[in-house]
Amino acid sequence: MPLGEFDLIERFFSRDAGRADVLLGVGDDAALLQVPPGQALVAATDTLVEGRHFLADAPPESVGHQALAVNLSDLAAMGAEPAWALLSLSLPDSDAAWLQPFAAGLYALAERHGVALVGGDTVRGPRVVTVTALGFVEAGQALRRDGAQPGDVLYVSGSPGEAAAGLELLQRDPAADPHGRLVRRYRFAEPRLALGRALRGRASAAMDVSDGLYGDLHKLCAASGVGARLVLEQLPVSEELSRRYSRTDCERLVLFGGDDYELLFTVPADRAAALEAELGQSHVLHCIGRIEAAPGLRCERHGRLEHVTGGGYDHFA
Amino acid sequence: MPLGEFDLIERFFSRDAGRADVLLGVGDDAALLQVPPGQALVAATDTLVEGRHFLADAPPESVGHQALAVNLSDLAAMGAEPAWALLSLSLPDSDAAWLQPFAAGLYALAERHGVALVGGDTVRGPRVVTVTALGFVEAGQALRRDGAQPGDVLYVSGSPGEAAAGLELLQRDPAADPHGRLVRRYRFAEPRLALGRALRGRASAAMDVSDGLYGDLHKLCAASGVGARLVLEQLPVSEELSRRYSRTDCERLVLFGGDDYELLFTVPADRAAALEAELGQSHVLHCIGRIEAAPGLRCERHGRLEHVTGGGYDHFA
Repeated sequence: MPLGEFDLIERFFSRDAGRADVLLGVGDDAALLQVPPGQALVAATDTLVEGRHFLADAPPESVGHQALAVNLSDLAAMGAEPAWALLSLSLPDSDAAWLQPFAAGLYALAERHGVALVGGDTVRGPRVVTVTALGFVEAGQALRRDGAQPGDVLYVSGSPGEAAAGLELLQRDPAADPHGRLVRRYRFAEPRLALGRALRGRASAAMDVSDGLYGDLHKLCAASGVGARLVLEQLPVSEELSRRYSRTDCERLVLFGGDDYELLFTVPADRAAALEAELGQSHVLHCIGRIEAAPGLRCERHGRLEHVTGGGYDHFA
Repeated sequence: MPLGEFDLIERFFSRDAGRADVLLGVGDDAALLQVPPGQALVAATDTLVEGRHFLADAPPESVGHQALAVNLSDLAAMGAEPAWALLSLSLPDSDAAWLQPFAAGLYALAERHGVALVGGDTVRGPRVVTVTALGFVEAGQALRRDGAQPGDVLYVSGSPGEAAAGLELLQRDPAADPHGRLVRRYRFAEPRLALGRALRGRASAAMDVSDGLYGDLHKLCAASGVGARLVLEQLPVSEELSRRYSRTDCERLVLFGGDDYELLFTVPADRAAALEAELGQSHVLHCIGRIEAAPGLRCERHGRLEHVTGGGYDHFA
């Protein structure tokens, strides 16, 4: 029997918040939340549309994970502590067989990072999921896109491109092993919250890679009023990628693939060695180039400029 | 020529925030906001789906207005000061002819209440609009649903039912006069923010009427662990409604019509006269019944119980 809207919220989205700063959670007109004194509120919202951001037959756990992860990644890119989330869910029907695993995927990620679901909305319509993530950070410590300076060293975390490869794999073969690394990296990529926190006071600029490293670097540079030089032979190509793809395809995936939630950030050159020494044990970091005064992106390979084609993802391009 | 995602945001959604508490607005991974010391953050989110919450041929101004209004109404129901909004917009195309008036409708309401649009997301998909509204209130002063006590007097503001009548009118005649009162009340209903603020420290419970007075009263009673008696002859029937509808239809619209953003609230009996004296000049308030200990809703007309059929709106019923 289909569930009513209120039963649906009661059954799937009413777990105890488990945070003392949630003064009033799901069930009233709005949530009441306590931001710690001296901290700025950090707020981000992102929408996933079925058939565009997730496949129609995607496991609901992964949709629940992704809807929150894409937002937590934005908070990570600010160096913020995540705290609360709101969920707006448009669904064609109140199918418990979909909702139960969707909620499980969302809560699993939320609980791993201490995030409380404090409110939302459920409506009937096409399958569209919007999450708003809220957190906090000391205002002066927040990582922003606009602080990169000529001479800064450019880093990316982890293994960008793997999520895009996982998506390509699923598009070719919907029955691809769901436990394979690339498929998991696409469906259950982890937002880099610990790294974001560690970069406070260290990085001069940061953003998360959501639409592809190349396009997102372009945005970081534009926000900072600078340009950048990418050193192609320093791009991180994971073992998994290099085993399955040609060098050209690996570079295409690393430069233009999205959805990894890796962080792209810049560090003043005189602090780069200290950063690598201090964070290199706990985080996978790759130096991939440097910031330059001249606007635009330039790619070099072994010291020679090389033209790279392609672009970041634009939903309306 | 269709606009790209970034041009679209730049062109339509980048007005200056005009608030000193917006430390970082549209354009970074997340917004950075300053909640005043001692105040709790209030957060609400609501989604509108084309064909369900607004008609496919609805004027885009009204969609922009409604998407924000439904959320500001939730803040009004908490007695909160609205401050910031995030917008997630799923659209089939980046049609400037739709976006320009949509943004105008949203900003007109936002600016009237000093609300800054500080972030969001635009994606391609079915036309679905989600707004998250953020504001603040002193935690102990927030209006909640769960404070109603037996003996409290029950009030509703303004003229509930007019928005539902406006929608019925448009469904019968899409060319109905767009300047007519009922159509305007449906498309451009005003959230009762000033009333919500005035009820702080006065009302024992409050919520906004979004799914219909009868069903929403049921929710307020359930949250408070009480019941209520509605006095049918005291229901406010506006001149416009009574001119166009039979008494039965007027009551149906007042009891079960949604989208007016009126406030439903309760006041301890010994403070009701003072409230009417203090707020009656600036706000239209109607005493429509009282809270009782026995759960459930009872309707009476001239002292005799009467059975009322119908129900609030449930998106998945």
